[in-house]
Amino acid sequence: MATLDDIAQELGVSKATVSKALNGAKDISRKMQQAVVEKAVELGYSRMNYNTAAPRIAIFVINMDYLKPDDFGYDIIIGFRKAAEPAGFVVEVIPLTQQMQLDYRYDEYMMRENYIGALFLGMCLLDPWLKEFQTCKTPTILYDNHISCNPKVTDIGVDNVESIELAIQYLRSLGHSKIGYLGNALEAHVYLQRYQAFKKVMTELGLTADDSVMGYSYHVNACLSQHLPRLLENGCTAIICSHDMLAHSAMFYCNELGLRVPEDISIIGHDDIPLCRYTTPPLTGIRQDRPALGKSAFYALSCQLNGVPLSTHLLHPELVMRSSCGPVPREPQKPSSRNSYPYL
Amino acid sequence: MATLDDIAQELGVSKATVSKALNGAKDISRKMQQAVVEKAVELGYSRMNYNTAAPRIAIFVINMDYLKPDDFGYDIIIGFRKAAEPAGFVVEVIPLTQQMQLDYRYDEYMMRENYIGALFLGMCLLDPWLKEFQTCKTPTILYDNHISCNPKVTDIGVDNVESIELAIQYLRSLGHSKIGYLGNALEAHVYLQRYQAFKKVMTELGLTADDSVMGYSYHVNACLSQHLPRLLENGCTAIICSHDMLAHSAMFYCNELGLRVPEDISIIGHDDIPLCRYTTPPLTGIRQDRPALGKSAFYALSCQLNGVPLSTHLLHPELVMRSSCGPVPREPQKPSSRNSYPYL
Repeated sequence: MATLDDIAQELGVSKATVSKALNGAKDISRKMQQAVVEKAVELGYSRMNYNTAAPRIAIFVINMDYLKPDDFGYDIIIGFRKAAEPAGFVVEVIPLTQQMQLDYRYDEYMMRENYIGALFLGMCLLDPWLKEFQTCKTPTILYDNHISCNPKVTDIGVDNVESIELAIQYLRSLGHSKIGYLGNALEAHVYLQRYQAFKKVMTELGLTADDSVMGYSYHVNACLSQHLPRLLENGCTAIICSHDMLAHSAMFYCNELGLRVPEDISIIGHDDIPLCRYTTPPLTGIRQDRPALGKSAFYALSCQLNGVPLSTHLLHPELVMRSSCGPVPREPQKPSSRNSYPYL
Repeated sequence: MATLDDIAQELGVSKATVSKALNGAKDISRKMQQAVVEKAVELGYSRMNYNTAAPRIAIFVINMDYLKPDDFGYDIIIGFRKAAEPAGFVVEVIPLTQQMQLDYRYDEYMMRENYIGALFLGMCLLDPWLKEFQTCKTPTILYDNHISCNPKVTDIGVDNVESIELAIQYLRSLGHSKIGYLGNALEAHVYLQRYQAFKKVMTELGLTADDSVMGYSYHVNACLSQHLPRLLENGCTAIICSHDMLAHSAMFYCNELGLRVPEDISIIGHDDIPLCRYTTPPLTGIRQDRPALGKSAFYALSCQLNGVPLSTHLLHPELVMRSSCGPVPREPQKPSSRNSYPYL
């Protein structure tokens, strides 16, 4: 582990200069500050072992609501803080923008702002820092993203193979065998996992899992208009959706086609966003336990801060039974009025 | 969380009787002790929250050496203890036998012996307790086994997709494109993962990954005699082996065939068992960092003990470069004397 002395020696300056530069002292030139921060990052210097003040952790949030109790990110952040703050850490939540990622290199930002590690919620493939995670030296926890081969980066989330397995097992227990799958585009790590898990688990059970019962698109409406009619034509009596908004829209669409949920068709969602309790009928689905996710993110970061190069840290998902699934219908119903759906 | 009172009420006995029964007091009949233990297990009672004594964790070891510093299990256990003991836990190492697993139900054993959780090293598919892990209520960490859908069970190990990716990337950087794979039988979770990872990563790179360059068998000698000649005939200039003993034997076999390692053929192992430093030539391969594995097992158990239903907890593997891999040969060498290998 590099020390202030190491940085000073490498740059040929005094330890006091290094210390002042890292603390943003006004009597140190911007150029020297930059050089010190860069060298500190390069050498893997961490304030963790030297600061007497409480160590600071950043939670960066982008593409995800988190301010109100019904927002998806809210409970994750609360869970994280419940585990981190009693352990003596200061947790700060930072709304992340694309611009911020273009303005700063990630490791340098963390060094300047005196954070020893971070949790990222909502990062997408287009976010500039995602590339930096391949080589960053800051202990970093990513929710629902996966970075291979950097010992400093850990991905957390739920076990997506198990979640799809739970959904299929439940539908099997209700007598369904013609089960369909509708998903988001496969560029995102978790959607690819769920899609592949469906194929794997169905195939292991000797059930059909090909394009006749599966479909995915980037947008919800495109997914429904392009794939749902085919799934229904091919006799699906139950459909697993890769996320709750898609499941919610699928229920609505089925209703428009004259199919009753769950009497004619069963629908399962994924994630258990707060909305699921209030849909008609209330949506059955896979829960990501958000407070537990938050806690587990802190435990994953603790691993990293203790020098354990954790790669993947996944929770067991849970099936939440509400009212959108029922026994397989004796006689499958065909859709009656496909074109009446107003939004397609 | 169930209390002594809950157990007493369910059984219609006094709290004192329950307490004595759980502590094996002589004035409580064996039958009553059995009834109390079974009810305690059923209700999910945990001594963790009630005992004032230091909580006890069991490390069960089977099919794995661990007593001497060069044994594979030794450093894992040391790593675990280094993390657990300063945190106030008592760690006991228990050699596990098949008979013990037949004599006791797992949860009952743990309750009787007053352990709050366990790490298992070396369990195989034939071990009777493996089935009980599907429904057990004791926080349980399994090294290199995977149990789906029980929130109390977590699997730990290294990320096998990443380890195979590291090996392939390294061989690619040396110019190899005809890369073979030799593996153990696919019944075991980790060997299936490594086999599938090879197919996946090679296919993504546009390289051949079919039976012409892949093979697996339960026994090392069978694997070499049945598959290695085919891989060499098909022009492989490098071979990734699913474990170090197989890699070591493959090097020996190649030598017998007149091929030099690494000049004519590169060999990569997996796990970095202590032997790898002493083979001729010293074996390049994927390291499972054993002290870090031990520590990570404790962090995974901490998650479980704090109510987080952790499913999977994997470390980043590391490539250890020794001398068994070299640049792709300009002209691939064919084996010269296949039948001279003395053990096949």
